[in-house]
Amino acid sequence: MMLPVAWHDIEAARRRIDGLVHRTPVFTSQTISRSAQADVYFKCENLQRTGSFKYRGATNAVRSHCTSAGVYAHSSGNHAQALALAARIRGVPAHIVMPENSNPAKIAATKAYGARVVLCSPTHEDRWRTADRVGRETGATLVHPHDDPAVIAGQGTAICELIEETGPLDLILVPVGGGGLLSGALIAVRKLLPNAIVIGLEPAGADDASRSLAMGHRITDFTPQTIADGLRTPLGENTFEIIRRLVDEILVVPEAEILPAMQTVWERMKLVIEPSAAVAVAPLLSGVLPARGRTVGVVLSGGNVGFPNREFFAPAGGVTGHPVV
Amino acid sequence: MMLPVAWHDIEAARRRIDGLVHRTPVFTSQTISRSAQADVYFKCENLQRTGSFKYRGATNAVRSHCTSAGVYAHSSGNHAQALALAARIRGVPAHIVMPENSNPAKIAATKAYGARVVLCSPTHEDRWRTADRVGRETGATLVHPHDDPAVIAGQGTAICELIEETGPLDLILVPVGGGGLLSGALIAVRKLLPNAIVIGLEPAGADDASRSLAMGHRITDFTPQTIADGLRTPLGENTFEIIRRLVDEILVVPEAEILPAMQTVWERMKLVIEPSAAVAVAPLLSGVLPARGRTVGVVLSGGNVGFPNREFFAPAGGVTGHPVV
Repeated sequence: MMLPVAWHDIEAARRRIDGLVHRTPVFTSQTISRSAQADVYFKCENLQRTGSFKYRGATNAVRSHCTSAGVYAHSSGNHAQALALAARIRGVPAHIVMPENSNPAKIAATKAYGARVVLCSPTHEDRWRTADRVGRETGATLVHPHDDPAVIAGQGTAICELIEETGPLDLILVPVGGGGLLSGALIAVRKLLPNAIVIGLEPAGADDASRSLAMGHRITDFTPQTIADGLRTPLGENTFEIIRRLVDEILVVPEAEILPAMQTVWERMKLVIEPSAAVAVAPLLSGVLPARGRTVGVVLSGGNVGFPNREFFAPAGGVTGHPVV
Repeated sequence: MMLPVAWHDIEAARRRIDGLVHRTPVFTSQTISRSAQADVYFKCENLQRTGSFKYRGATNAVRSHCTSAGVYAHSSGNHAQALALAARIRGVPAHIVMPENSNPAKIAATKAYGARVVLCSPTHEDRWRTADRVGRETGATLVHPHDDPAVIAGQGTAICELIEETGPLDLILVPVGGGGLLSGALIAVRKLLPNAIVIGLEPAGADDASRSLAMGHRITDFTPQTIADGLRTPLGENTFEIIRRLVDEILVVPEAEILPAMQTVWERMKLVIEPSAAVAVAPLLSGVLPARGRTVGVVLSGGNVGFPNREFFAPAGGVTGHPVV
């Protein structure tokens, strides 16, 4: 069976989004490499525009299949900002449906990128019902956050850049929520590095991907309980199909390992990453991966996390030194 | 009168520390450049080994004038870790005198780099008395955190790298505490870009440098009240002399502008910087600088700041989206 996204879609996405998305840097950390006994390379998509890899897929989608009526989506997360900015730069409207209990900072950020925000009740049904209505009323094109083939192809470009920078990798670690990034990575890696092992990482509190693979069908009815707020979504139909066919393994990361991994990246790399990104770092620190002696690529998927309040930084003891090595 | 550090000292420092210190990246932020109506380049010394530029000076000092008896210093801040690691990599002992009320994390970090930590009472007098005793007992060489000419020359190498990366700069912003970084920067800039304006930035709660320049003599007797814990030190004799002779201006930054600048760098650049580094960013956001239309270089001096506790990141609302543009 044909997969919904092919290598040539990623090649086309690269040409389409060239110059519109940041070519993010690749960093290393001696501490983490030493801990993993491996050469570890981090693709810093937290430094991507709008703070996450989502901007790649949103830009590719907006450039490949929208009309002057613009785009719409429902999202309370990084896709909302990514699509808003991608549309603004393309010069078309973006209509974003967000649950009314969304973080006010996220709503404000989405509006700041020029999107029209439509609030809905915080239920799965009302999100879709509201989005459908917005689509009918505006004639805009839906850009699904992870199941749109153009989105998947766009996300795959991150891995192409990583491999160009590092050369061959033995092992590639990608966080999995809706599965758009992992799917794009899989299509790219199977073409560029057929022998590389690709592992999807998901938090224990939203382990639907590993359970879906074990059951052989997509699990969508679950209540996520994870600090990794970007990974609470179930797989889509397309991403399930791609991941099922191409992934080597889905590894479930204990919730208790997520913040310590975020802390290690903070202290040693001085990078702000969100908990969802830390999920792909944690197994390098816990030692559960067969990383020893390997060359490893990790996608730091995003960095959208709030700034601590003033009290945290008060001189009375809040400011401590955690140096880089 | 000859200055205590000359351009050839910085050239020698570059050769000496080449390959031992990170050539840190230079980043930009569209948001900050737009806010300042300037082209702003950030030299990311928060990504330097041990988390601050201090590692440059410490490495140059350890490589240029210590014996097998090693080095000693008193420091409760970034110099402690920098000197500890520089000595360990050189293969000589480091004895660091730290006040007994120092942050336990900083003491632990200094020990983790292999230094012997000697605790003292938290008074200026006892720090020096204890340090003198340690020096006599061990035969080690003193490496002053900012007034040692080898330290000043080492810090100057950061500006050389910045200018190599960016080309000519009109305006260079450097935080000033003890003045080692600013002094090194001034020696380098006066050679490489004679027409560039160099401004030292200090927090309102420790504005001894601007008052010292206004009075024409070094003010050392004051009680700092600033969140920028790395900038609480008075100028040294050497740094006062260099700064007095070469600086264009010392600008005092209101305390209330420091954390918002740190937040902007967090949200827009996804970089962890310490409050002392944010002091050099703040005036670009407040608009007090004549930056418009200029090419500006800023040294992000360090990133050693504690990781927020678990509660801060709890999903109940702590995780918010502040995207990069």
